Amino acid sequence: MLPRLTTTPAATTVFTMVLTQGPVSRVEIAKRTGLSSAAVTKAARPFIEEGYLQELEATERTAPGAGRPASPLAIKPEREFFIGVKITNDELIGVVTDLRAQPLASSHRPLATTDVESVVAELAELVAGLLATDPSYGARCHALGLAVSGDVDKAHGLVRYSPFLGWRQVPLARLAAAATGLTVTVENDVKALTVAEQWFGDGVGASSFALVTVGVGIGCGLVVNGRVVAGAHGVAGEIGHIPVGGEEPECHCGGRGCVEAIAGTAPLVAAVRAASAADADDAVAGQVVTTIETALAAAHAGDPAVREVFARAGHAIGLAMAAMANLFGPERIIVTGDVPGLVAYDLFEEQINRSFTAQAFGAAADCRLLLRPRTFEQWARGAAAVAIQTLFTL
Amino acid sequence: MLPRLTTTPAATTVFTMVLTQGPVSRVEIAKRTGLSSAAVTKAARPFIEEGYLQELEATERTAPGAGRPASPLAIKPEREFFIGVKITNDELIGVVTDLRAQPLASSHRPLATTDVESVVAELAELVAGLLATDPSYGARCHALGLAVSGDVDKAHGLVRYSPFLGWRQVPLARLAAAATGLTVTVENDVKALTVAEQWFGDGVGASSFALVTVGVGIGCGLVVNGRVVAGAHGVAGEIGHIPVGGEEPECHCGGRGCVEAIAGTAPLVAAVRAASAADADDAVAGQVVTTIETALAAAHAGDPAVREVFARAGHAIGLAMAAMANLFGPERIIVTGDVPGLVAYDLFEEQINRSFTAQAFGAAADCRLLLRPRTFEQWARGAAAVAIQTLFTL
Ligand SMILES: [Zn+2]
Ligand SMILES: [Zn+2]
Repeated sequence: MLPRLTTTPAATTVFTMVLTQGPVSRVEIAKRTGLSSAAVTKAARPFIEEGYLQELEATERTAPGAGRPASPLAIKPEREFFIGVKITNDELIGVVTDLRAQPLASSHRPLATTDVESVVAELAELVAGLLATDPSYGARCHALGLAVSGDVDKAHGLVRYSPFLGWRQVPLARLAAAATGLTVTVENDVKALTVAEQWFGDGVGASSFALVTVGVGIGCGLVVNGRVVAGAHGVAGEIGHIPVGGEEPECHCGGRGCVEAIAGTAPLVAAVRAASAADADDAVAGQVVTTIETALAAAHAGDPAVREVFARAGHAIGLAMAAMANLFGPERIIVTGDVPGLVAYDLFEEQINRSFTAQAFGAAADCRLLLRPRTFEQWARGAAAVAIQTLFTL
Repeated sequence: MLPRLTTTPAATTVFTMVLTQGPVSRVEIAKRTGLSSAAVTKAARPFIEEGYLQELEATERTAPGAGRPASPLAIKPEREFFIGVKITNDELIGVVTDLRAQPLASSHRPLATTDVESVVAELAELVAGLLATDPSYGARCHALGLAVSGDVDKAHGLVRYSPFLGWRQVPLARLAAAATGLTVTVENDVKALTVAEQWFGDGVGASSFALVTVGVGIGCGLVVNGRVVAGAHGVAGEIGHIPVGGEEPECHCGGRGCVEAIAGTAPLVAAVRAASAADADDAVAGQVVTTIETALAAAHAGDPAVREVFARAGHAIGLAMAAMANLFGPERIIVTGDVPGLVAYDLFEEQINRSFTAQAFGAAADCRLLLRPRTFEQWARGAAAVAIQTLFTL
């Protein structure tokens, strides 16, 4: 267990700023946070004493005659290591990261079943394997973050409902802690990736941004006024169930016209199959389209009917993103995928941009869209970022 | 000009808690805010000395043997008065309120033109009349809040663009301050009403809620983690431009299928006119439906085709509210109108509820919907609430 160094709001503020934006001088920290210089020095001291922060050599004076040069504070990234694991229905993907969530080693482990006991046993093996890759990891790693799709109660370490895993009310943090001996945090996978972007990725420096993930589901993480939006009733970021399609199609959620029912992997593959079957001249029409990979192959082969299916999906995604931007006015939107072949977005990108711009209201269209591929290792890194955030915030 | 009493975050926190949730004991304030008892006492002192807060008589001991009974802190509501004015395209509506935003007097003033100079001159007359209603108002009123529809830059007191008033880049705060001698705050009218609900209305105690206003436009104010969402590019709360209607109808914003293009006053009146003209047997069909009042009369007369038009509008509003709830999961949604005859919502309510529930994702449907009539005086009170909030927060 790590010592608790963040016992005041000022400690959280100062450490977070150095972690996410450092190296940075005490003077600059005071300026950006509104804390007094004395408060900054007091907040930083225990982190320096315990080896999490260090003072760098002063390199230059801030202004001629400005007295003693400022020594920037910086993180010691290798002071502590973290493990992050993304749990999918057929695989565990794990990474070891340093204190800045930089991945140092990774490992995959296939799952034969999603039975909770088996998954936890495989998880313990994965973690042991990762910790064994370097002696320092075992010595200085105390925290494990887990990312799971579905409804997760982070405060209680509980997976309330994960449709893809078939889990209900699984006390995953307790089970994983018992199996690994580490302090365990469990978070929804999209929220975990959002935290990684907020602290260490394309969200750094933005007080508001959104992450949109396109794949089996269409998900969204929102940061407003510097905080991830959790939802008063545990639901937030369900951009996939914005009804942009009018009354059709029906969605598994009980609603109608949901973007996920148009652009999620399953309806997309079905629509591509229908389009390519109707076009028997096409080179790939002989193949049966049953997966997103074969759907992508059919589109890349140039079938216009198939490309039109992807354009319709991109249109639905762009409209949903505009609806979200009209409501929150994020500074940036990061768009990514959870299906490996889909993350390049060459099929979606143009239509997403066009439909977003057409539907965004006034200056909401000034929001920057960043299309970013993210690998499963980066999703696992999101889980590590949550473990880091949990340890260093109140 | 008021003295600046709120110079620290703790001062803002303590004063706001007593203002919005008081009377409340220092012990309770410390418990709810995480501040030390000493910090609460220090923060409250200048407000007590200047007569904004008072200590009530201790009424009971908190527990047997719990020592000195706690004296709750309470606001002195009549220590300071505020004026709030809503500016519409044909009328000024003004109120005098106390420190808790309770209206004490109100006044209307018709506008013959929306020419800026004339409006400011009428505003000065309205303010003078309100202040003259009681000698204490003139003596203890220093702040005026103005609520205007459209794009408002509160920080600079600037109306960037108000379509209904035909204003662009109007430095309203400066002009109104010169004409009235008061400190002036200008805010978007929906955000102003949101502030009134947050501090003094149905939003008290909720860390997240939404206000949805139905009328000429369909607007929305959002409070997330205790703060009104402003939008990084100045746009937020544009629930009216969520595309719930598929590809139809076209909207004045350039988008398609927007809820405002279906359920805003103008398209609603046009659809009612078309529906009642098609039904020549109806008692009110002889009348030409040209206003929301005549449209409401046609519906109340029982014409099924007209009632169906209102149901379709309610469906669009309910879907847009569900989209918003799916994204940020508010604790409550307050629904109100800016057209006097529309606020009863007997025509909308059932369909709004039904469509919201059908499209809300999982536990997002647990969000409470509060349908609340709000008069123009209450919108004016929102402007006063913004003036109060501006003076007593950092
Ligand atoms: Zn759905
Ligand atoms: Zn529109």
